[in-house]
Amino acid sequence: MHKKVAVILSGCGVYDGSEIYESVITLLRLDQRGAEVQCFAPNVMQLHVVDHYSGDEMPESRNVLVESARIARGNIKDVREAKVEDFDALILPGGFGAAKNLSDFAISGAQCTVQPDVLAFAQAFAQAGKPIGLICIAPALAAKIYGPGVICTIGTDHETAATLAQMGAQHEECEVSDIIEDKQRKLVTTPAYMLAKSISEAASGINKLVDRVLELTVN
Amino acid sequence: MHKKVAVILSGCGVYDGSEIYESVITLLRLDQRGAEVQCFAPNVMQLHVVDHYSGDEMPESRNVLVESARIARGNIKDVREAKVEDFDALILPGGFGAAKNLSDFAISGAQCTVQPDVLAFAQAFAQAGKPIGLICIAPALAAKIYGPGVICTIGTDHETAATLAQMGAQHEECEVSDIIEDKQRKLVTTPAYMLAKSISEAASGINKLVDRVLELTVN
Repeated sequence: MHKKVAVILSGCGVYDGSEIYESVITLLRLDQRGAEVQCFAPNVMQLHVVDHYSGDEMPESRNVLVESARIARGNIKDVREAKVEDFDALILPGGFGAAKNLSDFAISGAQCTVQPDVLAFAQAFAQAGKPIGLICIAPALAAKIYGPGVICTIGTDHETAATLAQMGAQHEECEVSDIIEDKQRKLVTTPAYMLAKSISEAASGINKLVDRVLELTVN
Repeated sequence: MHKKVAVILSGCGVYDGSEIYESVITLLRLDQRGAEVQCFAPNVMQLHVVDHYSGDEMPESRNVLVESARIARGNIKDVREAKVEDFDALILPGGFGAAKNLSDFAISGAQCTVQPDVLAFAQAFAQAGKPIGLICIAPALAAKIYGPGVICTIGTDHETAATLAQMGAQHEECEVSDIIEDKQRKLVTTPAYMLAKSISEAASGINKLVDRVLELTVN
């Protein structure tokens, strides 16, 4: 039986959406390991649009689901349509979109809230004992999904780690090529572009995360 | 010495820009093989903008260089600034952007023209005897770069192959996991998403193309 994995995207581009390399490496590894993948995104407007060439904000508005569809080659659904019983595991790549569109962590820090459809879907995995993988800055959502005591990593950034701790998470430092696992909760996290200096470095940790998340699914 | 490879992008998304998976797989393989990469794109407006969720054209205009910067995490330059003497090889991923923004092949077929900055840069590689890799639909530019007799593949699509032949190219059928090499011209092509049914299939041919392009660089 193929493992079925849901992937939640948050737009298309590191500064205002999903980090593209992290997303594609996740999808490639899942496919190489024989998993069936369905991408989802919330049907909401992006917090803002960033010109990735100049770094400036653009006077535009774009929809998270529509832009995420670029990464999914059109094969994507509104996360409201997602049902936990159809999947064995859930993975969220990083990029600022996780902190700007899936939550308001980038603005509100420890007082952030998670987009309701994304939160409900992720919490359903936690409650069902199904594994979740959170990449890069996506572990900022861990305490909201699992509650206090959840073990995770965003790498070695002390300020961000302190904010996660304020939210109730237990942060563990981690190298870019490695993963941190909360064995009780079946949560796997890896720093990726919180630390990566190259696409290969990001791939080393993400491949490990994908492999471990698949191992944690019940056969 | 690290090999230096230029990659020309054409936007961000299969239907109006660079195919994202093909682009990222190319960049990942180049990095894993120790190559130094610089991304470029033409500083022109996209032919149009496609909503990748609905498939419809959007009433927007976007710039090819600005949107390509999403794939490059901001590390991209105007192709006008590109100098052939700084690089050992050139690779163009596919996606409709190659046929809509780097050329007008999607509209004009055999009568197409190539964006002048892109054409000048690619022809400089051909004239210098430096290898070029063209992925997916990008071989539609081969006859414009090299002139008649150039050997290439876009997979098994007879209609597109016939159009390439009209332009003077010599088309050879090729499986998704394989490459076609014009040994005289040091041109390597692979079908990728002209044929790929999955991201892993696309990766199999692209990895082979990247490896061969690097082998063809003069040490």
